[in-house]
Amino acid sequence: MRFGVCWYPEQWPRSTWVDDVALMADIGFELVRIGEFAWSSYQPSRNRFEWDWLDEAIDTIDNAGLSVVLCTPTATPPVWLTNERPDILSVGSDGRRRPYGSRRHTCPTSSSYRDEAARITTTLVDRYSDREAIAGWQVDNEIGNHDSARCWCDQCQTAFSDWLSNRYESIGALNAAWGTAFWSQTYPDFDSVLLPAPTMTSHNPSLELAHRQFASDQMIGFVAEQFEIIKGRSDEPTTTNFYNEDTTVDQRAAAQLGGVASMDNYPHGPSDPMVTAYLLDLTRGAAGPGGQAWVMEQQPGPINWTDTNPPVPPGQLSVWMWQVALHGYDAQLFFRWRAARHGQEMYHSGLLRQDRSQTTAVVEIRDTMRQLAVADPEKPNPRVALLHAYVDSWAIDINPHLAGLTHRSLQLGPYTAARHLGLDVSIVDPTSDLAGFEVVLAPALHLTTPERLASIARALDAGTLVIMGPRSLVINEHHAWSESPLPGGLSTRLGARVVEHLSQPSSVLVDPWGSDAGIWTDVLDTDDADVLARYSGNSYLAGSPAAVQRESLVYAGFSGGGSWLALLSDLLDLSPHPPDIETFDRVDATYTIDHRKLTVESTPTSQQLT
Amino acid sequence: MRFGVCWYPEQWPRSTWVDDVALMADIGFELVRIGEFAWSSYQPSRNRFEWDWLDEAIDTIDNAGLSVVLCTPTATPPVWLTNERPDILSVGSDGRRRPYGSRRHTCPTSSSYRDEAARITTTLVDRYSDREAIAGWQVDNEIGNHDSARCWCDQCQTAFSDWLSNRYESIGALNAAWGTAFWSQTYPDFDSVLLPAPTMTSHNPSLELAHRQFASDQMIGFVAEQFEIIKGRSDEPTTTNFYNEDTTVDQRAAAQLGGVASMDNYPHGPSDPMVTAYLLDLTRGAAGPGGQAWVMEQQPGPINWTDTNPPVPPGQLSVWMWQVALHGYDAQLFFRWRAARHGQEMYHSGLLRQDRSQTTAVVEIRDTMRQLAVADPEKPNPRVALLHAYVDSWAIDINPHLAGLTHRSLQLGPYTAARHLGLDVSIVDPTSDLAGFEVVLAPALHLTTPERLASIARALDAGTLVIMGPRSLVINEHHAWSESPLPGGLSTRLGARVVEHLSQPSSVLVDPWGSDAGIWTDVLDTDDADVLARYSGNSYLAGSPAAVQRESLVYAGFSGGGSWLALLSDLLDLSPHPPDIETFDRVDATYTIDHRKLTVESTPTSQQLT
Amino acid sequence: MRFGVCWYPEQWPRSTWVDDVALMADIGFELVRIGEFAWSSYQPSRNRFEWDWLDEAIDTIDNAGLSVVLCTPTATPPVWLTNERPDILSVGSDGRRRPYGSRRHTCPTSSSYRDEAARITTTLVDRYSDREAIAGWQVDNEIGNHDSARCWCDQCQTAFSDWLSNRYESIGALNAAWGTAFWSQTYPDFDSVLLPAPTMTSHNPSLELAHRQFASDQMIGFVAEQFEIIKGRSDEPTTTNFYNEDTTVDQRAAAQLGGVASMDNYPHGPSDPMVTAYLLDLTRGAAGPGGQAWVMEQQPGPINWTDTNPPVPPGQLSVWMWQVALHGYDAQLFFRWRAARHGQEMYHSGLLRQDRSQTTAVVEIRDTMRQLAVADPEKPNPRVALLHAYVDSWAIDINPHLAGLTHRSLQLGPYTAARHLGLDVSIVDPTSDLAGFEVVLAPALHLTTPERLASIARALDAGTLVIMGPRSLVINEHHAWSESPLPGGLSTRLGARVVEHLSQPSSVLVDPWGSDAGIWTDVLDTDDADVLARYSGNSYLAGSPAAVQRESLVYAGFSGGGSWLALLSDLLDLSPHPPDIETFDRVDATYTIDHRKLTVESTPTSQQLT
Repeated sequence: MRFGVCWYPEQWPRSTWVDDVALMADIGFELVRIGEFAWSSYQPSRNRFEWDWLDEAIDTIDNAGLSVVLCTPTATPPVWLTNERPDILSVGSDGRRRPYGSRRHTCPTSSSYRDEAARITTTLVDRYSDREAIAGWQVDNEIGNHDSARCWCDQCQTAFSDWLSNRYESIGALNAAWGTAFWSQTYPDFDSVLLPAPTMTSHNPSLELAHRQFASDQMIGFVAEQFEIIKGRSDEPTTTNFYNEDTTVDQRAAAQLGGVASMDNYPHGPSDPMVTAYLLDLTRGAAGPGGQAWVMEQQPGPINWTDTNPPVPPGQLSVWMWQVALHGYDAQLFFRWRAARHGQEMYHSGLLRQDRSQTTAVVEIRDTMRQLAVADPEKPNPRVALLHAYVDSWAIDINPHLAGLTHRSLQLGPYTAARHLGLDVSIVDPTSDLAGFEVVLAPALHLTTPERLASIARALDAGTLVIMGPRSLVINEHHAWSESPLPGGLSTRLGARVVEHLSQPSSVLVDPWGSDAGIWTDVLDTDDADVLARYSGNSYLAGSPAAVQRESLVYAGFSGGGSWLALLSDLLDLSPHPPDIETFDRVDATYTIDHRKLTVESTPTSQQLT
Repeated sequence: MRFGVCWYPEQWPRSTWVDDVALMADIGFELVRIGEFAWSSYQPSRNRFEWDWLDEAIDTIDNAGLSVVLCTPTATPPVWLTNERPDILSVGSDGRRRPYGSRRHTCPTSSSYRDEAARITTTLVDRYSDREAIAGWQVDNEIGNHDSARCWCDQCQTAFSDWLSNRYESIGALNAAWGTAFWSQTYPDFDSVLLPAPTMTSHNPSLELAHRQFASDQMIGFVAEQFEIIKGRSDEPTTTNFYNEDTTVDQRAAAQLGGVASMDNYPHGPSDPMVTAYLLDLTRGAAGPGGQAWVMEQQPGPINWTDTNPPVPPGQLSVWMWQVALHGYDAQLFFRWRAARHGQEMYHSGLLRQDRSQTTAVVEIRDTMRQLAVADPEKPNPRVALLHAYVDSWAIDINPHLAGLTHRSLQLGPYTAARHLGLDVSIVDPTSDLAGFEVVLAPALHLTTPERLASIARALDAGTLVIMGPRSLVINEHHAWSESPLPGGLSTRLGARVVEHLSQPSSVLVDPWGSDAGIWTDVLDTDDADVLARYSGNSYLAGSPAAVQRESLVYAGFSGGGSWLALLSDLLDLSPHPPDIETFDRVDATYTIDHRKLTVESTPTSQQLT
Repeated sequence: MRFGVCWYPEQWPRSTWVDDVALMADIGFELVRIGEFAWSSYQPSRNRFEWDWLDEAIDTIDNAGLSVVLCTPTATPPVWLTNERPDILSVGSDGRRRPYGSRRHTCPTSSSYRDEAARITTTLVDRYSDREAIAGWQVDNEIGNHDSARCWCDQCQTAFSDWLSNRYESIGALNAAWGTAFWSQTYPDFDSVLLPAPTMTSHNPSLELAHRQFASDQMIGFVAEQFEIIKGRSDEPTTTNFYNEDTTVDQRAAAQLGGVASMDNYPHGPSDPMVTAYLLDLTRGAAGPGGQAWVMEQQPGPINWTDTNPPVPPGQLSVWMWQVALHGYDAQLFFRWRAARHGQEMYHSGLLRQDRSQTTAVVEIRDTMRQLAVADPEKPNPRVALLHAYVDSWAIDINPHLAGLTHRSLQLGPYTAARHLGLDVSIVDPTSDLAGFEVVLAPALHLTTPERLASIARALDAGTLVIMGPRSLVINEHHAWSESPLPGGLSTRLGARVVEHLSQPSSVLVDPWGSDAGIWTDVLDTDDADVLARYSGNSYLAGSPAAVQRESLVYAGFSGGGSWLALLSDLLDLSPHPPDIETFDRVDATYTIDHRKLTVESTPTSQQLT
């Protein structure tokens, strides 16, 4: 595993560079990510370039024996450029072009911006691709963050109409697929299908789902052009880094552009170690077999962008670093080297303070890097797959039914249950090859499509245990409800049907375990399936089937984490470990992270590692 | 009582129609409401009409021996029409014309939309008014829902200036009535009185109140044109259905257009059976003596549009149906026949699921219809009137004084108290004929007008017990505070004055009952009235009069439900029944609904009905 | 101390004036503030003036032996004027010109409005400055209220660019000072620095801080023109009254224009007597040595503009009046004489009700005025200074780090501690003359500037005890983080550095007192300072220095009020009095207010005053 750090030389006096990079090397870092927001620093006006500082920064890194991850700067265009071509700026759902300022204020569809992004990327890559110090490229930064994939400008409107025309060919096909007879929404032509902006009440979910897919496609299309430019000029790994709390852009599609999936890991965003684990597995899954997974930004101390920004106690950084390593990552870069003296993130910690003194993170990181080098843990080789697709999360966002309910919250019960049983998990697309897995978990696999049904059928035919969770196989890819009983397309094979759902926290329990049914509860009616569990408690649902099985297909209607833990424990004959513990079972050793005590141990040697 | 269902044949394959309608008939339905949002289905473009499907749908219903309630489609104009005449679309308070999409996005003032609404209504009614199957007409749908009565377009601005000019004749009269010397708001002319849109802080409440009245009038004016068209062509009952949680359009004015008042009854909107009871009595009262009251949409299972959308346990539907019947309704139609496969409401339950299987509602509805047919309960004949007018709720919305306080919350204490004493209640306009009532309740009768004072005086002169509640007779119809002591115009007859109010939950109690004074507390100073109750508890109000009486006029300053129950119990010498119980005392029998246990019983036979 | 009342004769029949003013005189009032929102009443159109009513009102006051505080009317321009010159109206951050209505909807930069404001002020002052009854002038009203200092109109944009150009001279200097290399924000010229309006995420805090300073300067510039006009025509004291919960305009700068600082005192806004005390001392401090402090509006009963608007029990008014007097005020005027019958504030109480009957406030005010006349308490002569500047509160608003954290919340701990020890406090600018103080408190003295450092150094050199609180000396005046260790510029003299901060409520305690560390906690590393206190409790901070001292300089890292009370008690060897008690130690007597029991006492006579 390679370690590194994110550095912004343009923000600091050159007099500090050599010493700073020497310290990076001394800590043991190999990689230095630079240039992420540096456009105005090397192109201060249309016809003026100032490359000397960047040349020198790369030289400094190179001279210290370190390598560079060089970023394209398109997350933040310079002011002179948005002045010159204002149609680069995105338009909000209120129809107003966004004022200059902050970041990600650009339209991914804008032909002006695509021109300019290609131009600066070409110039940058042409200049530096021959440098040996370059170890990789990052395209843009956190695409989709700040809801930046969606734009309501005229070019997006035209592109959306074209996108729909390509997808549906005739407006009649769209009207039929979307059921626009509902509320008299029939469209006369594709140009009449407006980007959905706030009006009296909600829009057709078919329109909303198409819009989400379109927005993700536009953003992927935008960065794809940069990947193409780099690919023609450099063989180094190329990636675009995601902040995984964002779900508006399909990370899996982005990872396929360069073979490297990368994420920015800020455990204090979600504030739950199991969510961090899920997000790490999500990005590693997006990399796919043979792909690399990087943490391009790793939290080094308190952050600045949540409502509370809690402290980071001693030992926490080490645990976070081990967690990344044990989830199978190839690289881990800390953000950022030195806390900023200017701009929006001056309250975000760095390894150095603004006054250049070292925080305690420096020693903790160095020590942990050495521990990791000694232990050199194997990568995970999961026998459990969790099916995940962004389109499912978009659909549930559009129709949460219970305010605030998310696709992720429905996936976390099964995921956490598997991890509490010590199982490594691959998070994969439902249509990917499932042959290598013994168990497939499919909670909130919301869309039912022929490809998904075929994939599940192949797994079942191969004897794989497929365990579906609630809200699965409900709507088709146009957001039309299944015409056949739920789970749509699989109820016959299951020998059971979903006949009702509850979408709220309640007093419903699940027997034989007496566990909480959770915030979403599918109620089943069974024709020809074994009942594994029944609802109980003070509810009219008491006695109704909660989980059924026919051959190797299971459908569990509940969402509660405790119920899923009990179900998987029974089905797989495994015992859970205590809460707050995350284990990683490898051939040579089992590693155990205690997220409460902030310790890492390995067995059989029972070595206290941190 | 007639039963029926809301059906959207345009959303389903014709192959299903005959069987579906046969099942409707088999269940025992008589009425099928259709066409509510079907405009684009029968007029897909300006010059193309496709009536065959609607002809066939009506034939199908007719052939099964059922009747049709046919709706005008103006809640949802087709896309081609808003494309052609964009000034149909309403404008938000931000000055931006609303984008196409969802529903009710039209301006009630727009001359373009009034033209088009008249044209399609005329066409539709001309085509079908001779059909014997037509048993009634519904104009538009849920007018006022989504705050759709208010629009900030240029035509509304002009109409508002005209409306004011008609009302006040001279701008000097308006300035005097509104007291525009306050904050230098004096208007030079009617054109300068802008529709109130968000600015630094609040607008003059006189302006706001006028705007609410204007918006209601515009919406009534809009539907009135359709009532006129229908009236010239058909003798069938005509109505426009309200969702009663909306208070922006005066339902009483709308009911007078066609003699039928109708409401959409979704108990899970307010989530309190006593609020449902209040809303049912509100619409029955709007129908007036001799008018009909219909539930045009009745909740058939879980809904989709609240934050939680709770489940509907077995027995709940039956209780809801009995409640509607016992509150004196003439018809009850379930919304909707089959859950939608497309569009914004696919999570709203129907009698059939999307896969066409029957929910348990089908059996429960059929059974309850039979029970009701056997019991055939009399309609209520209340001796208690509750005075209600929309203008009072607008005024309290404008000046809640305690954030979130509503006119309804101040009315519910007295209403619920009367119901808990087993009394039927008529909810009527303060200026209507009160001669038939023994008791008149007037909580939050906020406006004081000569007509209202005369109406109360007539009742008092006739010996009727008039019990006023807090916040009554405070402002005049221009939203100017009473110049004489409160209750304005009645304090002399009362022999007491309101000298202070508390507008918050507090530790104030009411003696002799020790009950909670509630969220609004008028403090009284009495000259010449009997003190029925005094404030107590750990408050400086302790000892002050809380309720006073002079002859048959009572003023109670508190709002708490328990205090009102005690007061009415004392004054009327009646004992309350336990909570959760609603009783209906008829000549032949007394019916009792237990809203917690979900049972209905009747005495003297003590028959368990559900 | 002079007493008075705010009166709006234009809102009432002339027939009531003589009697009303006679009652004012009878109560003992000396001052009557009038004309505040009367523009449209004396200039109903461009070329028509109606001065007779104002002449008569002033005559009436004069004839009763009272004096007038006459207000300029610019908080509410008439409709005809905004119709004629719409660029008077301000523009919101959404780019939309605000609709007419409410108040303070004007742009402080608008040349049209500055013209018109100068014109009407000149006319008004020319007309009345010779009247002997005029005892003072009020310019405008509550500048900054409703966030009215900030406007996004074109004139503000141009003025902002000019303001920046004056401040920075070259765009390169601005780019360097603001560190615009961060996120590629380098500006090509001053015209490109747009007023910060909502976009994807936050703006550069340097831009935001400059914008706050600019907005305050514009508003000060706007009223300064009126002060100049008055100064040329009248020698009477002139002021502009602040609502101190607003912090967008620098009250200290405004007070320097006329030598009188005035505030509107509504204890039910902040709802905490110690916040009221702080706000009173803030305005008295703004008046400066020799300046006068007035309460221009004093709460007379329940108000109408909070979410709850609580009642005002007997005795409360008296306590409020004593509190104002004991905090050293020169005048106190009640708002308002008679509760309004029209407009936005009809639920705001007055001394008379709308029906002209007297509330209990009349007697309570009269009695308390007599008590105060007898006691005639001395003004405070504090030996403690609290350093305060608006720019610090702007900076912390921009970067609260913990959502909702304010500069005020960090100042209240130390302020309240000093008051609970019976110490009078002056709230002064950090660069003002500190020579007269024995103790200087500096919590959240956020900016570090050469002038501030010099001022503190002078105090320390003079042996003054300087006690700094958390978040002090962090950023410079351009909002760039200190390059040297925190507290920036003082860590060497302190012999200690701030190395970490926690920004949340936590279980951290402070020993030796076992008190709560509060919502912000600076952690110190000490080289050469005495440790006065250490963090403790179940936290990794346990044992770290919490407060350190070197010579007469103390830095306390905690914010909790209890910890500050313990610290000051130890350092000053004083004992705190019980909670809810506020004491005022004067030469002849000590006054004690019990804010819970609503009593005022004085010793040595131990006289119960209220």
